[in-house]
Amino acid sequence: MRGKFITFEGADGSGKTTQIEKIKTYLEAKGHECLLTREPGGSKLGGKIREILLHYDGNVDSLCELLLYMADRAQHVQTVILPALNEGKTVLCDRYTDSSVAYQGYARGLDIERIIKLNEIATDNIEPDLTIVFDVETEVAMQRVGETKDRLEQEGIDFHKKLRYGYLELAKKFPQRIKVVNSNLGIEEVFEQVKKILDEKWLETQIKS
Amino acid sequence: MRGKFITFEGADGSGKTTQIEKIKTYLEAKGHECLLTREPGGSKLGGKIREILLHYDGNVDSLCELLLYMADRAQHVQTVILPALNEGKTVLCDRYTDSSVAYQGYARGLDIERIIKLNEIATDNIEPDLTIVFDVETEVAMQRVGETKDRLEQEGIDFHKKLRYGYLELAKKFPQRIKVVNSNLGIEEVFEQVKKILDEKWLETQIKS
Repeated sequence: MRGKFITFEGADGSGKTTQIEKIKTYLEAKGHECLLTREPGGSKLGGKIREILLHYDGNVDSLCELLLYMADRAQHVQTVILPALNEGKTVLCDRYTDSSVAYQGYARGLDIERIIKLNEIATDNIEPDLTIVFDVETEVAMQRVGETKDRLEQEGIDFHKKLRYGYLELAKKFPQRIKVVNSNLGIEEVFEQVKKILDEKWLETQIKS
Repeated sequence: MRGKFITFEGADGSGKTTQIEKIKTYLEAKGHECLLTREPGGSKLGGKIREILLHYDGNVDSLCELLLYMADRAQHVQTVILPALNEGKTVLCDRYTDSSVAYQGYARGLDIERIIKLNEIATDNIEPDLTIVFDVETEVAMQRVGETKDRLEQEGIDFHKKLRYGYLELAKKFPQRIKVVNSNLGIEEVFEQVKKILDEKWLETQIKS
């Protein structure tokens, strides 16, 4: 039986990474064999693509950058995610298609429909069974990543607000797939919400099958 | 006034490169300021992308490869082709969008509609004003690149035949933009056909404007 594909989204400082580790432990205790991976750079070739983006000394066109991330995603899906799902593993992926829409689309202003179309092509329509968005107030996220409001330019705050709005819009658009948790709270309180979502998703699957 | 954008397509051994040099000389004599460029690798970043494709020691997924070429194309259009066109230059480009459709689509079997869609996105809908396909018999092309039919596997011949078919199908699909020349003939005879196409295209433009 094909494994479950769960993705995790949210701003830096949303507590995403901490929660993913807890989720992995929780699911493994329930008998899931889990593969934890991330984007960008989840495949070996993806690492090479990242190197280009980080070390290239000229101007990278924003569309070119988007297409490089999509190439990374195609390689990740075909060589890491799909093989694991086909082995029945539960794949936990830190960032996926929604990051491109929220960051490049809502926050940076590239055409959203174009990004959605590219996501469909790059993933060969491999969609997550479940996506959890860790939603956090701009101020809380900033404190967590160790930055004060003063240190960040106004543009930084605007960017974060657009990003947050983008994730919430996506959740409205795909309510079956995307679930939002309030990530302003403490680690255990956030995790309680996550557990509830995971348990309900399982129940749903059991009823269906 | 925006410059003209002319692309050149065909198999290796079609005589494309020789003809492009002659076309450049011909157009410059008519007063065009020309920029000669090529794909893939026409931009500096494109060179880096090519390096990945050539030196990566693992398996590159075919969709990932296609997206990397599209990233190269986006960078080429935005940083090389468009700036030259906006300066009023005539851009002569050795291979462009039709190469992806003919090679990756018709010859290698990737979904053609998907490639066309990606071309539209990667180029931001920047289409050539004119595309010349140098059409050549498989056997003639093979002799020109210094390979005999014996040395090539049957698969090599099939590949070339599919590629040729692909280019001719594209020319049928876009008869206004794509013109086919018989490239089995000698250099001067091929160039006579090219000149006729270029001169007719100009006449057409003059009538329109």
